[in-house]
Amino acid sequence: MKVIRKVKEMQQLALDLKKENKSIGFVPTMGYLHEGHRKLLNAARKENDILVTSIFVNPLQFGPNEDYERYPRDEEHDEQVAQEENADVVFIPSVDEMYPVPMSLSLTMQNRVNVLCGQSREGHFDGVVTVLAKLFHIILPDRAYFGLKDAQQFAVVDALVEDFNFPVKLRGIPTVREESGLAKSSRNVYLSEEEHRQAINIYKALKKGQDLIKNGVRQKDRIVKEVSQFIKSHTHGKIDYVDLLTYPKLEHTDTVDQRVILATAVYFKKARLIDNLIFEENGELSFTE
Amino acid sequence: MKVIRKVKEMQQLALDLKKENKSIGFVPTMGYLHEGHRKLLNAARKENDILVTSIFVNPLQFGPNEDYERYPRDEEHDEQVAQEENADVVFIPSVDEMYPVPMSLSLTMQNRVNVLCGQSREGHFDGVVTVLAKLFHIILPDRAYFGLKDAQQFAVVDALVEDFNFPVKLRGIPTVREESGLAKSSRNVYLSEEEHRQAINIYKALKKGQDLIKNGVRQKDRIVKEVSQFIKSHTHGKIDYVDLLTYPKLEHTDTVDQRVILATAVYFKKARLIDNLIFEENGELSFTE
Repeated sequence: MKVIRKVKEMQQLALDLKKENKSIGFVPTMGYLHEGHRKLLNAARKENDILVTSIFVNPLQFGPNEDYERYPRDEEHDEQVAQEENADVVFIPSVDEMYPVPMSLSLTMQNRVNVLCGQSREGHFDGVVTVLAKLFHIILPDRAYFGLKDAQQFAVVDALVEDFNFPVKLRGIPTVREESGLAKSSRNVYLSEEEHRQAINIYKALKKGQDLIKNGVRQKDRIVKEVSQFIKSHTHGKIDYVDLLTYPKLEHTDTVDQRVILATAVYFKKARLIDNLIFEENGELSFTE
Repeated sequence: MKVIRKVKEMQQLALDLKKENKSIGFVPTMGYLHEGHRKLLNAARKENDILVTSIFVNPLQFGPNEDYERYPRDEEHDEQVAQEENADVVFIPSVDEMYPVPMSLSLTMQNRVNVLCGQSREGHFDGVVTVLAKLFHIILPDRAYFGLKDAQQFAVVDALVEDFNFPVKLRGIPTVREESGLAKSSRNVYLSEEEHRQAINIYKALKKGQDLIKNGVRQKDRIVKEVSQFIKSHTHGKIDYVDLLTYPKLEHTDTVDQRVILATAVYFKKARLIDNLIFEENGELSFTE
């Protein structure tokens, strides 16, 4: 496994691989790799000749009051995980490598961002698309892999690729869950035992919403209301939002008549948990293993 | 020679060519091809396996009061020119092909634009970089060719490629001139005979500026003043601007201590003419045949 730290070296390798007609699968990460990342690496490993993963904590996607400095980093551990998942290349550029001079252009999201988690993270997704546009040009992937736990991020990257005709196929990988159904997250360690027991009901609430749709309910308001009530009556968490939007456009809709996302964020004492399900108008999951 | 009108078809062809290890040279145009375009096509033909040119009048780079509707179009003539210059592919997408839905992202220039011609064309260069980012992903060129008559455009495209790490080499091709030195332009036909005789002095004025630098003059103010005076005393044209800026950053500088551009725009009765020279701090031209 190669560890590459220089943009030019990575891009030259990618260009050389293209000339050899090799397909490149790409898993962009901010490091501190966990089981969710392993699943992405695994999916990418299966359908590409070459597997490249990047580890870069992108300052552009952190707000001034967010935790860029405190964001956890463990390069040694990450390299080991990448090795275990049979990556061919780990790309670990410095901030100076990625942003050697102040940028002359800015890339900004005009929609898909003022809903769900985007409401409280102004500019976050602009930083995400900017670094991904750069990484796509440096790594030249045929396919790029993203976890659907961050469904809004996946929707934003979908817009990037569609708007600018990137020759990259996007793969959305379903959320990894505990047996209980609770979405895996590094933040779950901040839950007390009692909170953990309660948090299981977030997934149950979303499933309940899905069941309503499967049973023919079409009104957004009713679905959102029942999901919210379920969370309220089964947890002491404070709901940030429960919403149902079209996917991937993330537009408001009164009725379920196309692919939609049912998503929620819930505050517990020391952790804010997010989860979502994306399904077709008949209630069948849109992304499966 | 292939004429392609669909984005997907063009991109698939480009991907296939990459797999065959063919280099692609790209000349983006808005059609109505003239001698300047021929020179770009010729340069691209020489150093690439495959020559692709695009013809697309990009609505995004026209302001509301500009001449998008009136912009001259002659597809038959353009195809003939492309054929004569041995192009392999002419890509002629419709506006709907290039912009099938309203874009979710916007790409905007933060610098290099509030000087020279950019002062009077707000948003113009945002439209230029947006369509070029798309075309670069659709055509996947190894090298892209631009005329240095539009030196600000070349500077802007340079920023696009640098900021976002596009794997594309840019080639700036020197301005085509009449024997008199007057820069060739489709707008020259709007000049009266007398104006044409006068307009020759625009190039002479720029050469005079270059000579000053060659002779060791370093103060921007003096150079700009002498060039302006030369134009004023040798033409009845009205000067829009004469400026000397660093190149390609287009930043203000008091002294010539690096690569600079000396540029001017002059209004005649029915035509606004632009011209420029780019040279090193010793006065030697930076871009030559």
